[in-house]
Parts: sequence; C-alpha cells; structure tokens
Amino acid sequence: MNSTQKPRRQRSDGARSRQAILEASARLATIEGLRGLSIGGLAEHIGMSKSGLYAHFGSKEQLQLATIDTAAEIFNADVVEPAVTAADPLAQLTAMLERFLVHISSGRFPGGCFFVSAAADVNTQPGQVRERIAGFQAAWLAGLADLIAKAQSAGDLDPGEDPEQLAFELNAMLGHANTVYLLYGERAAFMLARHAIRELLKRARITA
Amino acid sequence: MNSTQKPRRQRSDGARSRQAILEASARLATIEGLRGLSIGGLAEHIGMSKSGLYAHFGSKEQLQLATIDTAAEIFNADVVEPAVTAADPLAQLTAMLERFLVHISSGRFPGGCFFVSAAADVNTQPGQVRERIAGFQAAWLAGLADLIAKAQSAGDLDPGEDPEQLAFELNAMLGHANTVYLLYGERAAFMLARHAIRELLKRARITA
Repeated sequence: MNSTQKPRRQRSDGARSRQAILEASARLATIEGLRGLSIGGLAEHIGMSKSGLYAHFGSKEQLQLATIDTAAEIFNADVVEPAVTAADPLAQLTAMLERFLVHISSGRFPGGCFFVSAAADVNTQPGQVRERIAGFQAAWLAGLADLIAKAQSAGDLDPGEDPEQLAFELNAMLGHANTVYLLYGERAAFMLARHAIRELLKRARITA
Repeated sequence: MNSTQKPRRQRSDGARSRQAILEASARLATIEGLRGLSIGGLAEHIGMSKSGLYAHFGSKEQLQLATIDTAAEIFNADVVEPAVTAADPLAQLTAMLERFLVHISSGRFPGGCFFVSAAADVNTQPGQVRERIAGFQAAWLAGLADLIAKAQSAGDLDPGEDPEQLAFELNAMLGHANTVYLLYGERAAFMLARHAIRELLKRARITA
C-alpha cells in the first residue's frame, strides 16, 4: 500500500490489483462464458493462488457480479462516455452506435461484446447474475430510446417514429454485427451494420 | 427390432431411440450450452447409462456434431420446409421469417433458437463443432439472400437492393427477437421484430 502519498482519485495498489484481476476476468468470460468463470479457473489463468482470489471475492457468484460491474465500467468508458459529449441527441445517438462497433472490432474483449456474450450464456439461468445482465441490457436499450425521444423533441427525428421500435432495430444491427464478426471474422459485418444504421436513421430523419 | 413389418420410411427402434436421444440433447444444449453438453451429463439427464451413450456416440465431439445435425433437421422441418411451399420467392421469404419467430416462441427449444444459442457458445472455440455451426448460419443467410435475389428477378423486390445487405438486416431482427424474448420473456419482442421486418420489406418492395 502507498497510502502516505496517495493523490486524489488514484487507486491504491489493492484496488488496482482488484481492477486488473476483474479486467482479466471479464476478458476470460467472453471466451469461456460467464458461467464458465470460476475462482479456480481464473486463478490458474492469471497465475494467482486460489486462496488469494477467494479472499477477494468469496464465491463464484460474487466474482461473476464484480466482473459484470467491471465490464459495465469498460463499456461505459469505451462506448457511452465519449458519445455523450456530442453536440445534440441525434449526434450522441449516432456516436454511441459507432462507438459500439469500434468497441467490438477493437478486440477489447476477445469474445466481442461482453454483454451480448453474457446474455446468451445466462439467459436460461435464473439468478442474480442473469438479473444483472438483463438490467444492463434494459438500461442500454432504454438509453437508446431516450436519445431517440430527445432527438424527436429537438426536431431532428420524426416524432411519428416509436422510440422503442427504432431502438430495437438499431440494437439488432449491433448485436448481429457482433455475431457475424465472431463467426466469420469478417469486418464486412461492420460495413453491413453501418449501412443498415444509416438507412434506419435516414428513414427516421426529418427531411427539411 | 420390428424388421418384418417395416413400412417404407419408418425408422427402426434403434433409429427412433437415437433420434429421441438427440432431440433431448438438442433441447439440453440450449440450456446448458453446446459446450456444456457431455455424454455423462446427457446420460444423467435422460436416465440412460453412460456406457450406452458412449456406444451411440463415442466421444463428446461426435455427440455435439450429431446434436447439431438433429437441430438442423428440426429447424428445416419447422422453419424452412413449410415456407418453401409458398407461391413465389417473396412469399417464401416472408413465410420463412415468420416461421422462425413462431419456432422461437413455440418453446420447441427451451433456450430459443438452437443455432443462435450455439453460435454464441462456440464462436471463440476453434474446431469442427464451431465450423458446423458457422456453416449452418452461413447457409441460412445465403438462403435468405437467394430468395431476395429471386424476388428481385420476379419483379417483386427492387433490384437496387443488395441481397446480402437485406438478408443481414432481416436476420438481425430475428436474432434480436430471440435475445430480447429470452432475457425478458416478452412476446413484445416478436411484435417489434415483425414490425421491423414489414418495414424492411416495404422499403425493398417495388411499388407499382
């Protein structure tokens, strides 16, 4: 610990170590599946003792939940935060969709989008882990719908469009780009998704 | 065996039993994941001896591959075959998309579409199992694109549409309906997907 000279907001070594463990865990989860994540498996993967990891997390479920929270922080930093600085709701929406595609193609997680992968893995497994993934997905979709509604209020998107419907369609393109990219390793998946997103937004845009 | 009175195309008891095992295996795979499928786990699930199942399949990978082939047969019988009887390529395409949504919502597989679930499970795991899943998905997408091209030749869809692009967009709606339905159990997912598919086909339709 380096508590005597700790500048504001700098994490302690313990917190940094915990963060590094959870980032490795989130990457591993996109390969092995969130359900495949275990304290023993992660300990072996990062070369740490199993007892050391138990001291950090206590149970497999706590490790899974902490991993989800870390993946959400990474997602927000990669996709959401850079987009919300754009000038208006429509620009924010467009930036967020594009940042998602960059996030997948960047290899940040070897198994593509953590949340797409996790949703497929846990959607038939009731429990806290599934609830947290479903909550993240619902918030993401609601965030897209909210930006659409704000872009309608700003006069940039047709108020006749149903925000929930358009958010579903835009999100479908992101998820499918992820699937096609992972199965075929084709960056063409991103071209197809970008074209589809442009067409969907063109349909919804108010033509002056 | 009942070989003395075997009507044409009726399966032998052995073949029926193998088919029943593989159907149970395909259903289980949509819950446990295709990777989670094992001869021991399946034996316990269906109340059969592990040695009996080994005699049928020999290895976990052979069981996985045979399960994929059975899931493909079920998919073809549920989704493809009833649709190809429609009058023309556009009607066949429309019927196939609708049959997919019915296939998911019917609970035929407890974890939704076998191939969506399997793709997410194996897309980072190189090997024969992943190749077979990717091959099925590629053939499905190519089949959609082929019907689109035929509908263009028949004068029902705008020849200016790129069949690969439109197939990607339509398939995205199907996959997303599956995801949203499994996570939230909302049949609204199907309403959203149906509306999106109608709009995509309306955009592509030649307006006389």
